Amino acid sequence: MYEMLGGLTVIEASSFVASPTAGLYCAQFGAEVIRVDQIGGGPDYRRWPVTADNASLYWENLNRAKKSVALDLGRPEGRQLLQELVAATGQFITNFPAEGFLSHATLAQLRADLVTVRVMGWPDGSPALDYTVNNAVGYPMLTGPGPEPVNHVLPAWDLLTGAYAAFALLAAIQRRSATGQGSEVRVPLSDVAIGTAANLGGIAEVLYSGENRPRLGNAVYGLFGRDFVTADGQRVMVVVVTHRQWAKLLAALGLEQAVAAIETERGVSFATDDGLRFTHRDALYPLFEAEFARRRHGELAATLDAAGIVHSAYRTMLDAARDSAMVEENPMFSPSAGNPSGFAYPAAGAFGTVPQMERGNALAAPHNGEHTEEVLARHLGLSSGEIAHLIDTGIAGIHS
Amino acid sequence: MYEMLGGLTVIEASSFVASPTAGLYCAQFGAEVIRVDQIGGGPDYRRWPVTADNASLYWENLNRAKKSVALDLGRPEGRQLLQELVAATGQFITNFPAEGFLSHATLAQLRADLVTVRVMGWPDGSPALDYTVNNAVGYPMLTGPGPEPVNHVLPAWDLLTGAYAAFALLAAIQRRSATGQGSEVRVPLSDVAIGTAANLGGIAEVLYSGENRPRLGNAVYGLFGRDFVTADGQRVMVVVVTHRQWAKLLAALGLEQAVAAIETERGVSFATDDGLRFTHRDALYPLFEAEFARRRHGELAATLDAAGIVHSAYRTMLDAARDSAMVEENPMFSPSAGNPSGFAYPAAGAFGTVPQMERGNALAAPHNGEHTEEVLARHLGLSSGEIAHLIDTGIAGIHS
Repeated sequence: MYEMLGGLTVIEASSFVASPTAGLYCAQFGAEVIRVDQIGGGPDYRRWPVTADNASLYWENLNRAKKSVALDLGRPEGRQLLQELVAATGQFITNFPAEGFLSHATLAQLRADLVTVRVMGWPDGSPALDYTVNNAVGYPMLTGPGPEPVNHVLPAWDLLTGAYAAFALLAAIQRRSATGQGSEVRVPLSDVAIGTAANLGGIAEVLYSGENRPRLGNAVYGLFGRDFVTADGQRVMVVVVTHRQWAKLLAALGLEQAVAAIETERGVSFATDDGLRFTHRDALYPLFEAEFARRRHGELAATLDAAGIVHSAYRTMLDAARDSAMVEENPMFSPSAGNPSGFAYPAAGAFGTVPQMERGNALAAPHNGEHTEEVLARHLGLSSGEIAHLIDTGIAGIHS
Repeated sequence: MYEMLGGLTVIEASSFVASPTAGLYCAQFGAEVIRVDQIGGGPDYRRWPVTADNASLYWENLNRAKKSVALDLGRPEGRQLLQELVAATGQFITNFPAEGFLSHATLAQLRADLVTVRVMGWPDGSPALDYTVNNAVGYPMLTGPGPEPVNHVLPAWDLLTGAYAAFALLAAIQRRSATGQGSEVRVPLSDVAIGTAANLGGIAEVLYSGENRPRLGNAVYGLFGRDFVTADGQRVMVVVVTHRQWAKLLAALGLEQAVAAIETERGVSFATDDGLRFTHRDALYPLFEAEFARRRHGELAATLDAAGIVHSAYRTMLDAARDSAMVEENPMFSPSAGNPSGFAYPAAGAFGTVPQMERGNALAAPHNGEHTEEVLARHLGLSSGEIAHLIDTGIAGIHS
């Protein structure tokens, strides 16, 4: 954990991926992030993957370095405590409904300069999830060789929404520092999805052409990039994004003359045009397929590395987890002591590395209610007697 | 454009997706983002999709609301001007190499409290791209029905890295405000990818089980969610994330009794356990397949909407672009005047919506060098004579 956001406290009332990652990134940068959940855990508390004891490996990684306060949010007293925590601290991340007891208008009555970041499904408040906004903008119809649509497995929209929400939180805080004014930033998954399709030129593209891009399997649109299989059966992705890389790749594979022959035959030059390398892929791909099929992966990888070509072998997540350079010896990971599951494994810290700062170890996720007493005392000034009463009456829960 | 980050100036020297989106998000929130490129455009300036005139619809959407300064970065004088712009403004986003003329150490000699955010491939500086880190962490081996690996088409790692970089920029600025200290935050695509696999519990899962998750096609791991096809041939994604939604879905489809029979036969209850709904999918899926196949999509969608079930039809990007609620009438979009391509279409603004603030129209991307004179005058205090000399000698370029 880096002490980048030291002094900042964020209340997080959320579940699943998007909103919790926003809190996670803040916590990994040193903010005090207090996740407030229903006593016993929110709807994501047992989300798979789980251990044999039904401890969620998902939850305990998405909520590292946070504190946990457990309240009965079904009762007015529990809801009021959550409202008071938001008002006392001034920063709030949530995916609770825009209207209701956690509406920004309600909370801003308790603290005028409040900053709220709210992850939503659709902008009108109706529900959506990563998998449903993905369909709605058309990516599954472009993924895989076809003809069936293919969902991506990575919850990409949740993740992008979460990182954007963390950015929006700091932007709104910066504005408050400059103007004194609080605000709510609403980030609907559906707007992130359609807005991204637009940012990448996809919306302009289909409106310009009046048709959809073809299915390309594992090939990359508009440049030279695809998967190829080596003599020993290893599938490798190769992507060329600069003209220098193109020249180097041809040299590395001994394909200069064969490619020059295609250029002559078709009256084009691939040297400085990504698009032509894509347009004429029918002629280029077979040449590369043959060269990859003639070489073993070890030898080929060394050749490509030496030439500065961007490539990588397809492998499984277990391969990745056991790749010591990527995990065990990667400074982003550290031993995780005290995981709620009891299982110990390398734990990830902040994605960002700051050479000027000390990267502390990754911290464990809390047990449900582990910090209820500490937080109610420190942020709401409740006495130990008052807290004991809340616990006795089931308004607040603690880890026992 | 929202005036959230008014007063902040960011120099961006970057290309492709990750680093430019970091600048884009800042620009859409009102920061002055000055993209500095090679005269004539960087390596992404003609990236597909392009118009018939070879104008990049990709570039002009990833660089909206920014300013453009064109310099000859192959010459020492051009490089020095870029260094001076970074030093004069104090905030820098880049994907240039960590060592070299844009190294943080070099730049910090000109401005001690500089904040640099650097998007990288691998942490050691070797090159990687979205498609290659994706393979390296294993997602293509989990995507689609198998057995072949399937790349996702969405550049998810680039996008996540870009949003995280924008967050990291504001975090480092916040630290500088508190401590006076500058810093560099390095964000390697590979760390974002393996760190995300860890955050989602994936690394823990494979190390715990010693094996990879099975390929699930369009089904969602660990809960009830999958695609089904209606009587009129519409494929629909349905995902259940709360126990209330499960009960509602069974009622909406009239499946209570059939599901109860499975529960009795197998000695389980699906009512409050996502995992069991997944484990027993062999029995559950056929029931739902039959019910979807009996209903037409229009009728079914209305039933599911009324019950608050999260669902969506698969459609193409052209369908999405022509969905007026999602694009034309969505307040996130506005008419785009002045696109460099000359093609007019709805332009996306910030993903976030701030009810307390005015959302201005989305701004166009600049032409290469459109703001060279303005920026060199304002941020470096150069005279018109000095600027004219730079242009005459080909050190600086302007849009003509």
